[in-house]
Formats: sequence, structure tokens, C-alpha cells
Amino acid sequence: MSFSQIFADLLHETWQKIYVSGVPMQQITLSNGEIFTRYDTTGAYTDLNINCENGLPLIRKQPAYGKTQRYYAKRGEITPEMTFVATREGFSAQFVCEKIANGSAIIPANINHPELEPMIIGKDFLVKINANIGNSAISSSIEEEVEKLLWSIRWGADTVMDLSTGKNIIQTREKILRHSPVPIGTVPIYEALEVVGGDVRDLNWPIMRDVIVKQAEQGVDYFTIHAGVLQEFVPMATRRLTGIVSRGGAIMAEWCMRNKQQNFLYTHFEEICEIMRHFDVTFSLGDGLRPGCLADANDEAQFSELKILGALTKIAGEFDVQVMNEGPGHIPIHLLAENMKKYQEYCNDAPFYTLGPLVTDFAPGYDHITSCIGAAIMGTLGTSVLCYVTPKEHLGLPLKEDVKAGMIAYRIAAHAADIAKGHPHARNWDDAISRARFDFRWEDQFRLSIDPATARQYHDEALPQPNAKHAPFCSMCGPKFCSMRLSHDIKKLTVEA
Amino acid sequence: MSFSQIFADLLHETWQKIYVSGVPMQQITLSNGEIFTRYDTTGAYTDLNINCENGLPLIRKQPAYGKTQRYYAKRGEITPEMTFVATREGFSAQFVCEKIANGSAIIPANINHPELEPMIIGKDFLVKINANIGNSAISSSIEEEVEKLLWSIRWGADTVMDLSTGKNIIQTREKILRHSPVPIGTVPIYEALEVVGGDVRDLNWPIMRDVIVKQAEQGVDYFTIHAGVLQEFVPMATRRLTGIVSRGGAIMAEWCMRNKQQNFLYTHFEEICEIMRHFDVTFSLGDGLRPGCLADANDEAQFSELKILGALTKIAGEFDVQVMNEGPGHIPIHLLAENMKKYQEYCNDAPFYTLGPLVTDFAPGYDHITSCIGAAIMGTLGTSVLCYVTPKEHLGLPLKEDVKAGMIAYRIAAHAADIAKGHPHARNWDDAISRARFDFRWEDQFRLSIDPATARQYHDEALPQPNAKHAPFCSMCGPKFCSMRLSHDIKKLTVEA
Repeated sequence: MSFSQIFADLLHETWQKIYVSGVPMQQITLSNGEIFTRYDTTGAYTDLNINCENGLPLIRKQPAYGKTQRYYAKRGEITPEMTFVATREGFSAQFVCEKIANGSAIIPANINHPELEPMIIGKDFLVKINANIGNSAISSSIEEEVEKLLWSIRWGADTVMDLSTGKNIIQTREKILRHSPVPIGTVPIYEALEVVGGDVRDLNWPIMRDVIVKQAEQGVDYFTIHAGVLQEFVPMATRRLTGIVSRGGAIMAEWCMRNKQQNFLYTHFEEICEIMRHFDVTFSLGDGLRPGCLADANDEAQFSELKILGALTKIAGEFDVQVMNEGPGHIPIHLLAENMKKYQEYCNDAPFYTLGPLVTDFAPGYDHITSCIGAAIMGTLGTSVLCYVTPKEHLGLPLKEDVKAGMIAYRIAAHAADIAKGHPHARNWDDAISRARFDFRWEDQFRLSIDPATARQYHDEALPQPNAKHAPFCSMCGPKFCSMRLSHDIKKLTVEA
Repeated sequence: MSFSQIFADLLHETWQKIYVSGVPMQQITLSNGEIFTRYDTTGAYTDLNINCENGLPLIRKQPAYGKTQRYYAKRGEITPEMTFVATREGFSAQFVCEKIANGSAIIPANINHPELEPMIIGKDFLVKINANIGNSAISSSIEEEVEKLLWSIRWGADTVMDLSTGKNIIQTREKILRHSPVPIGTVPIYEALEVVGGDVRDLNWPIMRDVIVKQAEQGVDYFTIHAGVLQEFVPMATRRLTGIVSRGGAIMAEWCMRNKQQNFLYTHFEEICEIMRHFDVTFSLGDGLRPGCLADANDEAQFSELKILGALTKIAGEFDVQVMNEGPGHIPIHLLAENMKKYQEYCNDAPFYTLGPLVTDFAPGYDHITSCIGAAIMGTLGTSVLCYVTPKEHLGLPLKEDVKAGMIAYRIAAHAADIAKGHPHARNWDDAISRARFDFRWEDQFRLSIDPATARQYHDEALPQPNAKHAPFCSMCGPKFCSMRLSHDIKKLTVEA
């Protein structure tokens, strides 16, 4: 399949690609002349005259090695990346610069990822969504993974993690990076484990350092580093109902126990900072001891690690390296606020990046839903990036349809949180669709909806006739019982009265 | 299709029906000998030796006319219905009796619905789910509606509303009632409007009274009555972005405006109470002025009506009639707590029954998800019944698959809320599945999940081999990277250390 085909139906049927001061936007012209503009993550794939089959055009001028966005921000120097995200989000570049300087926002943008359209992560900005892709030893090819990347950005992914652990890790990542307009994250310990043939005992700092350097050279924008899994915390986690459920966390815990040594990512943390500063790779400090079930939520292991992540956040900041921190996982609703409170206490204002959290464990096959409830609440409380969960979580490797289901659930969670946080433009979208609904502008309602084809299909199941697209009712209530139609009559009556 | 076929696969593959002191339960025997028991809503359809094709067996002894569950509760008399729900929920009958006496809980159980398995609604008990079914003028037959009823209870619906507005309203309802083990609710004004040929102006109290009496005689367990839509509130609602979106609310508003009179459901409220007391029909006081979009949330129209509902709740209580109140609708996350606070201020402890609420308007086709976020939060705050929303909301009449999708999203919301509220047994289910997951008891994990067939199918997509059902990994991470497998190794190492 040609890559641009993945976007074709969207573009032709629902929106036009426009550029505002060089920043891409999606524009919808409604049937009443109203124009609605929104954020776009689809890159040059939706530019009609650009062929992206062999990679995206290089749109960033290469910045200098050894200096990060935070380095410039601390000096009050506004970079092209800051200007770009300021336009993209509707804030001033000065505001963006201040937030990056104080560490409450980040622009993950490796110097060697010139295909990137910069984006910002922080609680003052739109809540972002991360999609996980990547093969496992059991399934998937390089082409399938690139398709999943494009499929993710078609549905609105702001960042994508390549979590490949199977064959061709390096080649898969290269192809993903050269085709990605969004920041790409990885977990370098996965590749390091492949390098040593899968035996955890053989991992060591020099091997890990080589992997980190090579991935940084390739252009990876952020690394998950499980430096907070300290040797002394491991027994706390083994007493749990489901032990350690982070792959990287489990690898580091096993390494500590087998070698009876402290986590080498912790003991070599400053060297990691130096490498990451060189390429401006952002830290995503991994929560290797996150709970894997409700029974283990907010426990001693989790909060002990979180405290260390707070200390590491501070050290990275001294190196001008950008940082966000990963969070759970599985947390019941009544413990979410405590989780955020502890986070703020330990990690200050650094962006928080949570996986879900799932608010119940009883629905494998529907964990995009169990987790988008937790994600919406955590986004409202101040989480900056929501890592999506697909329906396949706990059961198998997600396929394209699972990526779509996960993305849509998380767009809903993120947007609901943007509204709840009072983001200045968030509710415009809801109001536009509500006006279309009240006016029975069905085509406008479909085009404004998050998944136009599905909305149209559901409507057309019962009423496929063309004139039903102008009818003042749908098949739910029929013509006599449509409350919105009645409302128009009532409005006339109150005006006459 | 034979009715019991709808339940066949569930019963044979996942659980056994048992009775505890006459109360049905679902029991799952796990591969390690552990036994898990849970609430059951499926009625005699899952009793292997009972033929329900022509209706359910009559299991309630007919109580006396003119006396309600609340009447008995106020006198401290424990009814068979109270004993039944006490066993069902794991509380004492005395506790149940007290909650019904003070109006904070209800047992909707019409004297003429002897097929009913009594259930309780109130914030101290499990959060319940209501499924809406019913035809419209555009589509559906009587048989399809009975199938939707059975499909709803298969997926766990605690109550079902028949919202038919199309043909054969009376016959459809009769067939639904005789086949329903759960309380059935209706909105009598729909039938009244059909009686007068669809012209709102011709509605009046005598016609409505006849409809209410006949439906109560049939055995309907609760009526939605839009008595709070006062004439003077209508102009507040017409100034909104989407006006009035409750069908019953719009009908009453139009009636008030056309006839320049006060809502006859309000002026005749005490007569309604007398009829409902006679059959022990429960009030579901309708929120005719609920907001239909975020822009209209928590406005003057909504809260003016809510205050009236509070006053009517008190009057109904004086007649010993049981009451719950309906709530929104469309409310952004940050306004949910205010909504609950106002509810408690005006309506005291009467059970709250909310539709969702949807926390964003931008996702038609996915409103089961937009609304289950709001439902989970409202359930946590104390809402007793969550009225499900299907993916078809705003687009068309839901079909069977939509009913299933809506039910599953709402089971997740209700269960997450039960856990968050600290219901004494809620987390047992999560812990059982988490133990199965950590032990790689795949078959147990599937059988414990809310939708066993889907969980199994997702797992088997990549790993269909029989031995994969005992493998210490799945296709998501593959054998080397499974953190749970690693956790078992780490546990051994910490024990050895």
C-alpha cells in the first residue's frame, strides 16, 4: 500500500491541509460558511504534491550538537522549534520559552531528526497522546510497523514509541524515523538485551552506552531509561500480587539481583545525561516499578522509585537535558489524585506521562476503555502525555484496527481533559459540532466528528437515502419524537409569546 | 432464534448458575480450584430446565395493592423483596430496610410484575446500569426488541427502559414485561402522544392518567415523569445552543407554550402519586431540561428544574412512593462535581440516575466511550444508576451489537466506581483476574473477563496453538521480554538472596 493512501479518504472527504506561518493545520469549511481549524499531526503525507514513499522531506535546519532546547530557553533564546510550537498551540514564543526554561515543558527533538514537526509537552499545553508500536519475536514486519506509525498519526498520535523487541530492530527504527513527522521514543535496554543474546546477566554499562549513542545518532527523540529501579527496591516489588510489569523494569531488577549490584543506569546517570545533551534527546524516566494491577497501586515500591525519579529529574536539568517522567499503569479512581499529588511533590512541574491508568482489571479486550477513564481524569489533574492502551493490551500485539481503537479512546480522554483544564480553544470543536447537530446539518456533523466515516456509516445504517442528510430527525427517535426538531418549534413559540 | 440460545455460549463456557438462599449467582470454578461468585441478571434463561419462550416463571408472590416497599420499610417490616436484595448484595435485610425507609434506596418492583427478580438502587449498593431499548417509527419489530432486552441482561443490564415510540407500543411492552427478570421502565408521555395522534396540543391530564393506569396494570416498574419542566423555565432553555434534548421534556415544554398553561404533570402530581402507590410503581423524575451539549451544562434551566425535582421527591415520599431522579446528559469533567453537589443539596439522598454524562461532544460514533468517562466519575461521586449510551447515540437506533458495546462500557464504569467507593466485594473480581494473569492461567483469565469470547479471540489471533494457553508469555512481548515471566525469576532470586 502506498503510504499516502492511508490518508487519502480523510483528506478528500473531510478537511484541507493549510499552513499558518509554516505550521500545518487541518481546515474544515462547513456548509453554512463557518470555518473550523484544528491541530494536525499527519506530516507531509497530506501535502498533495509531496512523495513520501522513501522518507519525509527534511524540514528542520540542523541545530548545533551539544546544546538542547532547554539550554537555549534558559538563556532566553527563542529557537525555530519554539516558534513553531507557539504557533501550533496559539501561545506566544516567549511563553513557550519560559516553560521550557523552568522544565515544565519539553520539545522532544533530536538534532538528527530533521523530518520532525516540533511539538510541545507540558501541562499548560494541549494534552498529548503517545502511541506504542513495534514488533515482538512473535510477529510483525518492518513494513507493518511503518504502516502502524502512519496509521497512528492519521488518528492523531502526537508521539510514537517504537518498542520493537523482535527481528531487525535497527532497520525497523531507521525506517520509522525517516518516515516520522512526530517525535519517536525508544527503550534502549531492549536493543541492549538483544546485543547480549537475551541473557540479562551479560548486560553492562559499555554495551548500553553504545546502544544509546547509536540510537541517538539515528535521531531518536526520547529514551525511556529505567534508572529509578534501585537494587534495594526490588524486594518491595516481588511481594506484590503481579510483581514487576514494566519490561525494562523487570530487566533491570533481574540484573541487580543476579549481579548483586546497583542499577548501572543509576550509577552512570550523569554519563547518560552527557550523551543525551549532545543530541538533545529527551529523558522519559521510566517507571519500572509501576503497579500491574489495582492491588499493587500506590505502594511502597512505586513511590520509592518515584522519589528517585524526582532526584534524577533535577540532575538532568543541571545538564540542560529535557525530562518527562513515566507514570502508571493500573490505579483505581479513588487513588488517582494521591498519585498526582506525590508526583508533584517529588518531580515538581516536569511533564508527567502516564500509561492509562486502567481503573479496573476485569476487562481484557477492552482496556482502551478501562484506561481512557483513568487517562481523562489524570489529564484533568495535569498529566501532559497519555500513553494509549489498545484493546489488545495483556492479550497480544496490537494490529492496525487496535491502534485506531486505542487512538480514538485516547483522543477522547485528552480532549475531555483539555476542556476540563480550560484550554482556551478546546471547546470550540464541541460547540461547532453541537451547532451542526442542532441545525440538522448532518454532513457537517459527520465531517466534524473524530471519525467521520464511522459516524456516517452509523447514521446511514437505518437512513441511507440522500434526503435523510437534510432531515430534521434520525432513526433513533423518528420525525415525531425528535426533541431538537421540537425545540425549534418551542423557540418560535416563546418568541411569539 | 430461541431465547435461551442467546445465553448458551456464556453458560457452557464460562460459568454455572447457582442459587444462594433462592438468589441467582454466577459461579466460576478456576483451574487452581479457586471459586469466584458474582451477581447475575440473566433470569431463568440460564436455568437449564426452564422453558422461557412464552414468558418467565412467576417467582414473586403478589403483594397487596396500595402498599409500597417504602410503606413497609417505614414500618420496619421486611418484605420478601428486601430479603432477596440483601442476599444479592451481601448486606443485612435490616440495612436494606433502613435505606428504603429513608428514601436513599429503592426496589422498583410493580405488584403486577411477578416475573421480577428484585434488585436495589442506592448509593450504598452496587452501581447499577440501565439499558434503553425500544423501537421508533423508523425501525424495529416486537421480536427484535425482546431480543435486545435479553441481549441487555446477558451483558449485565440491571434495569431496562422500553422507549418505544413506533408501532405496537402496548404489545411490545407486554412481551417485554413477561420476558423480563429486571425492572422495566417507560416514559408514559410517549404513548399518550400516540393516543392523541401525535399532536402535542391535544395532550391532557385525563388521557395521560389513562395511559399511566394501564401501564401500571401491565406491570411497568418505574415511570419517567417530566413534572419538573415548568412553563416559566421554557424560555431559559430556548436560549441555549441545543435547546431541549429530552423527548419528554420537549413534549411538555411545547404543550405549556401552545396551551399557555402550567405542565399538567406538575399540577396533577399528587394524583400521579396515588396511582403509583397503588401498584408500587417507582418514580424516575425526568430531567426534561438536561443539557444537550457542553455549552449548555449546569445552566439556569437545568438547575431550576432540579430544584423542583427535589420538592417533588419530598411529596412522593409523603405518599410512600419510591423515587429516583434523572440527571444529565452532557457535562464536561470539571463541572461534574458541581452537578452532584447541587443534586445532593436539592434532592437529598434520593438515588441519582444519570445518562452518561458525555464529557465531550466531538465523537459521535463513540459516545459509549465519551459518556462512560463521565459515568465512572459520577458513579464514584455517588450516582446509583448509570443509563448506558451506545455508539449509535445521536446517529440512529441502536442494534444488538450497539447494545453490547454500550453495556460493556458501562459495566466498566460501574465496576470502576464500585471499587472507588470502596464496596466491600468489588475488587475481588480484579484480584482474581490479576492472579490468573500473573500465573499465566490464560483460560482462567479469559473466563473471568467481562467478555470471555473477545479476550480469547484477541489472544488467539497471534497465538492460536493449544499450548499457548499455558505459555508464560503472549504475542505482545514474546517469551524473552515478558515482564511477568521475569518477575517470577526475580522473586526466586530475592528469596535466595
